[in-house]
Amino acid sequence: MEPIINQIRSRVFQRLHRAAVLPRRKHSGCAEQAAVPATTNSRKNKPTLLVSRLYQPANLRDLGLQGEMTCKSQRLMQQAGLIYQSNPGCYYYLPATVRSMEKLVRVIDQEMQGIGGQKLDMPSLCSADLWKTSERWDLMGKELFRLKDRHGADYCLGPTHEEAVTTLVAHQATLSYRQLPLLLYQITRKFRDEPKPKFGLLRGREFYMKDMYSFDVSEEAAYETYESVCQAYTRLFARLRLRCVQVQADTGNIGGKLSHEFQLPADIGEDRILVCGNCSFSANVETLSQETSDCPNCKTGKLEESKGVEVGHTFYLGKKYSNIFNATFSSAQNKPCIVEMGCYGLGVTRILAAAIEVLSTEEGIRWPGLLAPYQACVVPPKKGSKMDGAAVLAEELVHTLGETLPRLRGEVVFDDRTQMTIGKRLKDASRLGYPYVIVVGQGALEETPRFEVICQLTGETMFLSKDGLLDLLGRVETV
Amino acid sequence: MEPIINQIRSRVFQRLHRAAVLPRRKHSGCAEQAAVPATTNSRKNKPTLLVSRLYQPANLRDLGLQGEMTCKSQRLMQQAGLIYQSNPGCYYYLPATVRSMEKLVRVIDQEMQGIGGQKLDMPSLCSADLWKTSERWDLMGKELFRLKDRHGADYCLGPTHEEAVTTLVAHQATLSYRQLPLLLYQITRKFRDEPKPKFGLLRGREFYMKDMYSFDVSEEAAYETYESVCQAYTRLFARLRLRCVQVQADTGNIGGKLSHEFQLPADIGEDRILVCGNCSFSANVETLSQETSDCPNCKTGKLEESKGVEVGHTFYLGKKYSNIFNATFSSAQNKPCIVEMGCYGLGVTRILAAAIEVLSTEEGIRWPGLLAPYQACVVPPKKGSKMDGAAVLAEELVHTLGETLPRLRGEVVFDDRTQMTIGKRLKDASRLGYPYVIVVGQGALEETPRFEVICQLTGETMFLSKDGLLDLLGRVETV
Repeated sequence: MEPIINQIRSRVFQRLHRAAVLPRRKHSGCAEQAAVPATTNSRKNKPTLLVSRLYQPANLRDLGLQGEMTCKSQRLMQQAGLIYQSNPGCYYYLPATVRSMEKLVRVIDQEMQGIGGQKLDMPSLCSADLWKTSERWDLMGKELFRLKDRHGADYCLGPTHEEAVTTLVAHQATLSYRQLPLLLYQITRKFRDEPKPKFGLLRGREFYMKDMYSFDVSEEAAYETYESVCQAYTRLFARLRLRCVQVQADTGNIGGKLSHEFQLPADIGEDRILVCGNCSFSANVETLSQETSDCPNCKTGKLEESKGVEVGHTFYLGKKYSNIFNATFSSAQNKPCIVEMGCYGLGVTRILAAAIEVLSTEEGIRWPGLLAPYQACVVPPKKGSKMDGAAVLAEELVHTLGETLPRLRGEVVFDDRTQMTIGKRLKDASRLGYPYVIVVGQGALEETPRFEVICQLTGETMFLSKDGLLDLLGRVETV
Repeated sequence: MEPIINQIRSRVFQRLHRAAVLPRRKHSGCAEQAAVPATTNSRKNKPTLLVSRLYQPANLRDLGLQGEMTCKSQRLMQQAGLIYQSNPGCYYYLPATVRSMEKLVRVIDQEMQGIGGQKLDMPSLCSADLWKTSERWDLMGKELFRLKDRHGADYCLGPTHEEAVTTLVAHQATLSYRQLPLLLYQITRKFRDEPKPKFGLLRGREFYMKDMYSFDVSEEAAYETYESVCQAYTRLFARLRLRCVQVQADTGNIGGKLSHEFQLPADIGEDRILVCGNCSFSANVETLSQETSDCPNCKTGKLEESKGVEVGHTFYLGKKYSNIFNATFSSAQNKPCIVEMGCYGLGVTRILAAAIEVLSTEEGIRWPGLLAPYQACVVPPKKGSKMDGAAVLAEELVHTLGETLPRLRGEVVFDDRTQMTIGKRLKDASRLGYPYVIVVGQGALEETPRFEVICQLTGETMFLSKDGLLDLLGRVETV
């Protein structure tokens, strides 16, 4: 073996200083042949994003659907190569999904940091001791994934982190009242052994969640913090242009005194929510002591029921966990006092799927504009067609967009599958839901070149000059 | 209970449209008192980052050290409130660490995407079936964290994802030779049940890793890809200004024919590496069949031994996994062919800790400039001191920096702990390692105001005018 390794090694070493390998190379077969040398384009010039190279929108028609399709978002996301199921409730997030999720994370970061949130990252492996101390080790039952390490110590995979964060804060020797409110949050993978995972990313066993925990000097202060988080959540959904209802909710096994859910109204929703037509009252059905259609708040309004997907949840916890773990701060009088807590969740992967669920058509994904993996797709004419002359104009356009609109760099893909008709590629584009699809066809060859622009969220089609197009895309929001 | 909840609820609702809660509020005690109303500064103006509010550099002196301090980076990172151990080898990454890690992730993303890498995210829960298919279920022994779900199905927590990614690619019905090379990577938490976790983030049981997998049409093409990844790694460490040695390595239980490690020379390193003084030969000692000081490559040079921390590892895998999982592509002749693979790891949390290990002094952390959680710290005079008049100049300076240098927004902290002397705060700043510390003291009050600037990486102190300071900081690299 050794000599072979060295031989290969030296070949590899000789090449280490050769031209950079470009994402696109040409090969003619699978046998071991001399590779065509890489061309020498600088890698500093970000290469054009070619649909044929993206994993895996190019293979739309060949992606089989796995298992039972329990809802629209699951089916559309699998068909579009956004997710792939490995095990029940466990998904690969494919590249376009990761892009979208990274955008959502940036929006969440902005809103959480805007109210003073500080981001940390807690271990997934949580010691059983912590969970036994809070008595949730037994309470959580089979929902908790449990395991032992090589020394036989018990752990669970964190589905939520009240215990972990409270013990962290409790171990800070001198948390001063001056440092409060303290808001700590993380955006990490969580684990929950659902009895029946379903609806794709809406009810998985492994998923991303933003969980924030607040620490305050008093109940009053804790309520203020609670409100500021609710406001941040409201702003977040407004930025995503998603209709979201904040309803009074049950506190479940998290505990505490006050709780709200943020629900996206959707037929697929597993929650039943009631909204008063007259006042601001809204509640999850399970919080009401009896089935009623009369509003318990204004007494005059009627409650209307709809189904909702829970995408956020806030809890005022009081001293439930801080008492257990002895999380204290020192007051202005220098006395140790138990801290008041709240906790606040957002389902990150669930928001993505729920947004797709409520915005999409049966045929294609529609994204909240801010979260679309790519903002635009440029479609050049079919090779060999009578419009073929427009191909160079399409390439020029992509170049111009990159030069003129720096915010759209990396946001525009080029559908280079020119062996296919424009129509077929438009069908794919419709499935994937790029907010803007720009067809460079016959109109681009006219004396006053016109580009066909399809705004997929509204279904509108426009014919714009290059300046008009640049103006339109210049106003696209990105994050 | 119900009426109380409703009472609280309505209070909360009334406040939902009040002024946004600012990160900083004043409270006088821990009893339930009327909170001082939040002021109405717009949250759009990012608040100044105050050291007193950051979690948790303000408590440096009070952070106890947990357990045995096995190396410098572990001790310094715990003292500085960067990490906190929950269980052996499992750490909380506190806010400053998360900031640094996010910067490292951006650099890695740039380099991986620069060579055509596409980012995905694979489940942590890996089914035992996959690992049994590759025979690593037994091979990995106790290093694998294993668990059962509620239905009794066996899973492990992924320490690496060759099986997972190969089966993903194998399930893509029509991967065309035109789509290759395909480079898929993720930056996720990995799990390894180390027998003796130690050295803080250098050898943990739960850690972040970047793992990339390449798919190519031929051995030749796979070597080219292998090289391009090695080059990207070399560029990455060069951008971090870390000396990194690429050495020939053992393929371990990953398997395959060719492997290199990327080692940061450090006394604490667990690997012994040999570097020839005469040619480019370098190797991990364990790859050599016998202890030797003569270079097996040039035959004339002498091998020098040093210790290294492995921060990256590349493997040419060939068809090892693609054969097992039948991962094929269709050739130009439309024939199914087994794909050639490589895999490439970077220890994300390990790079952070290793960089701190090699750059820091015994007293304070020194960061790779690009990765420092904050680039600068402004230190105003002590309250009530004879320089107190400079306090307003310090605040003005922070404002000017934000206005003039947009790239430094969010990168400059203000040490508002003015009850402490400048000297004490400089000691903290030295421990935390902000690349630039700016003292606004006596010099700022002179006719031609001068700011004292300490460049912590070099230890240099400069006295600069405001313009000089802006010029210096304007050249700071950020990511």
